[in-house]
Amino acid sequence: MKPRPHRHRELAQRLRRDARLRPGEVEEYLGANPEVWTALAEASPHDAADILESVSPDTAGALLSPLNRGQRAPILEELRDELAAEFLEELPLGEAASVLEEMAATEAVDILENMETETVEAVIDLMAEPAGSEVSRLFHYPSDTAGGLMTTEVAVLPIGLSAGEAIERIRNIREMVDDLTYVYVTDDFGVLRGVLSFRDLVFVRPSVGLDEAMEASPVAVHTLADREEVSELMQRYRLMGLPVVDDLGHLQGMVTYDEVIDAVQAEASEDFATSVGAGAEETIYTAVLSSVRMRLPWLTLNLLLAMVVAFVVERQTGIISAEPVLAALMPVVALLGGNGGVQSLAVVIRSMAAGDLPRARIWEVLRRQVSIGLLNGAFLAVAAMGLTVALLSLGVFSSNYGAAQVAPVVGVAALANLTIATLAGAGIPMVLRRMGFDPALASSIFLTLITDVVGFGGFLMVAAALL
Amino acid sequence: MKPRPHRHRELAQRLRRDARLRPGEVEEYLGANPEVWTALAEASPHDAADILESVSPDTAGALLSPLNRGQRAPILEELRDELAAEFLEELPLGEAASVLEEMAATEAVDILENMETETVEAVIDLMAEPAGSEVSRLFHYPSDTAGGLMTTEVAVLPIGLSAGEAIERIRNIREMVDDLTYVYVTDDFGVLRGVLSFRDLVFVRPSVGLDEAMEASPVAVHTLADREEVSELMQRYRLMGLPVVDDLGHLQGMVTYDEVIDAVQAEASEDFATSVGAGAEETIYTAVLSSVRMRLPWLTLNLLLAMVVAFVVERQTGIISAEPVLAALMPVVALLGGNGGVQSLAVVIRSMAAGDLPRARIWEVLRRQVSIGLLNGAFLAVAAMGLTVALLSLGVFSSNYGAAQVAPVVGVAALANLTIATLAGAGIPMVLRRMGFDPALASSIFLTLITDVVGFGGFLMVAAALL
Repeated sequence: MKPRPHRHRELAQRLRRDARLRPGEVEEYLGANPEVWTALAEASPHDAADILESVSPDTAGALLSPLNRGQRAPILEELRDELAAEFLEELPLGEAASVLEEMAATEAVDILENMETETVEAVIDLMAEPAGSEVSRLFHYPSDTAGGLMTTEVAVLPIGLSAGEAIERIRNIREMVDDLTYVYVTDDFGVLRGVLSFRDLVFVRPSVGLDEAMEASPVAVHTLADREEVSELMQRYRLMGLPVVDDLGHLQGMVTYDEVIDAVQAEASEDFATSVGAGAEETIYTAVLSSVRMRLPWLTLNLLLAMVVAFVVERQTGIISAEPVLAALMPVVALLGGNGGVQSLAVVIRSMAAGDLPRARIWEVLRRQVSIGLLNGAFLAVAAMGLTVALLSLGVFSSNYGAAQVAPVVGVAALANLTIATLAGAGIPMVLRRMGFDPALASSIFLTLITDVVGFGGFLMVAAALL
Repeated sequence: MKPRPHRHRELAQRLRRDARLRPGEVEEYLGANPEVWTALAEASPHDAADILESVSPDTAGALLSPLNRGQRAPILEELRDELAAEFLEELPLGEAASVLEEMAATEAVDILENMETETVEAVIDLMAEPAGSEVSRLFHYPSDTAGGLMTTEVAVLPIGLSAGEAIERIRNIREMVDDLTYVYVTDDFGVLRGVLSFRDLVFVRPSVGLDEAMEASPVAVHTLADREEVSELMQRYRLMGLPVVDDLGHLQGMVTYDEVIDAVQAEASEDFATSVGAGAEETIYTAVLSSVRMRLPWLTLNLLLAMVVAFVVERQTGIISAEPVLAALMPVVALLGGNGGVQSLAVVIRSMAAGDLPRARIWEVLRRQVSIGLLNGAFLAVAAMGLTVALLSLGVFSSNYGAAQVAPVVGVAALANLTIATLAGAGIPMVLRRMGFDPALASSIFLTLITDVVGFGGFLMVAAALL
């Protein structure tokens, strides 16, 4: 994590921006000026990767092919894993293996996870040692566990050293260490015994032993700990790196802060997708059939719940025959409730994801959301009644019973639906959590059942009572 | 960012967990064992803060009051800002000022931003120097800009030093530096001239000058750069800290990686809230009237759009009078479209937020989403027709035209609505971005307009054509 060189940075950044806005022009420019591209690829692999992601897949392939493996590896590390995998799959196996050898093992594994299983095995077999066995070992950890996230390029020192000796050792291995914020101390068996920050190590007296300078029994996670636990611990203790150990406490690696950023981002944005029954891991690059497989079960549930709504409405079609304008007004009440409810759903799910909703405050939160629903409901009920009266008086809508009769039906139902919906939006994720599910899971689908039953069925009941 | 001490950690973690599940018991236990609480507060302010957030506000107040300001400050730094502000507002002004003096200036400012304006001014006036003027200076930067996020406790050295001299300087100031990953180098005027990692500084020959060892013209942002730019730069270049400069290039501070984690989390989860017209910054702790103010304008828009849906349906009530079961079935088609559409909306907005949707791939993405919509639509159309036939044959629903006539109406409309909805869900955020808006902005509200117009109006049109 060194500061980046600034040569080429300005040109690189301009090209990167242009590639997003006018990919065609940039493709042409780089095609005509291959030396600019090579220099940029060398100096600023991050920007080069961004450019490759912006241009068409064919151009991306054409830009990558003239580079040698030492130039390709850092760019592929920065590229979105799916795209890097696509590119490697088009290379001969041996060439793919030699590019992967140049990468940090964790990055190589992330890319391999997006390739066909048979290709993966063949490629790993062709990789030179020690990269091959390192990648093969890491490949077996699921990608959302500490083992799948960790880097193995860590500063590890035996407990017997003095601080001065430790610094000398680090001087020799420092090029192989990914992140030197922390230095881990292990015993003869490789068991993690302590940690100290590199900063403290530098400023301690050189004669002090590591066992004395270190913090004993540091916070650590098991290789199979899940991503959420890892990011929670690092955020709580504001750590820049978290050591990963096996069953017996042997140090296996370290999760660095940038993996946590990715984890936090993925988790914060997956709630939105989960709440509507899209795939938690689904992106715009997910294969069409995988997307269909992830979404269809929830849409099918949605269909079944929708039939419940249909059933409720079907019982009350009599009042619609008597006053057909009700058929036009019932979607209004349902829509308002649906949107009001999903607003509180979104706010509550966010707060839960950030760990901000302890049980002691559940009633307070529900009370607040009901107040919000009542206040919004009151305003919207009045506005909806006003609009109904206006549309009926202007003759845009026609009514058998007259505006004075129909408008209150809309008002009462809108107020009721908004209040119930806002409460349900807050309550559904709480109930899901209580039942041991992800609070976001299909919550929006369950919510629309309630808002539509009340919005359609409740509305017609109010109509039957008032007309 | 030192590794945390492990004493009390286990007890602290157990209490923290228990406080979430059984706050009452923990309140009682800590009330009866004040010495445990004091020891825990001292040793593990993070866990203490978590416990305070889990128990009732009254208990939290009671637990904080016996602590001295040196014990309170680190806990309040870790506490959610709104709660820390609430607590400080109940203290006498002078006492609040003295607690804030003990905190890092950035943290103090974050808390002050949640307090009443008059209280803030009075409290800052009472703070001792230099803390008071530091806080007052930082308070003027908006909280979502680089200036609002930065820490001022940075390692800064004059460009004339040698590496050896630099390390000696740092030895003396290291307790005042928040994060020593990077050392910044400035000229006589305080203008940022370079950066080097502390790690490189340690291993370079002591006689080398900083001007030679440093990376010149490092990546930096202006004090008023927004949070999104800051986190994008830090992620792209994998920096653990980003220097912040004023108009003339004077170094003002540094944004550390943990602020970026918070920023990334806030931004990733705000899309969900924004898409339904809840407040981007809204949490369960937002004041009720503020929540109402944030949500009501979008609900009002929603009401107006709903009236468009009503208008479309009102034109076609004739067919409902002829076949009342259509009134019951139309919500089914609308619901399926609404949910199918919001699935692709969520996936596309997520990918946009992660910077994964370049213009060159827009058509590809739209094509994929249409394919998903068609496949899901075909399956659901068949399922919906089957259910309609079953419910009509079983006599649960009754029909004037018969199942063979009504079921195809449901099937055709469901297929059409799902396909159009899935396309619209992907297209709306793209259009919003193109128009210069946040792609998430009220996108779900616009989407339901489309899915309901097609789901209700389109359904009735299909019915009129086929029956």
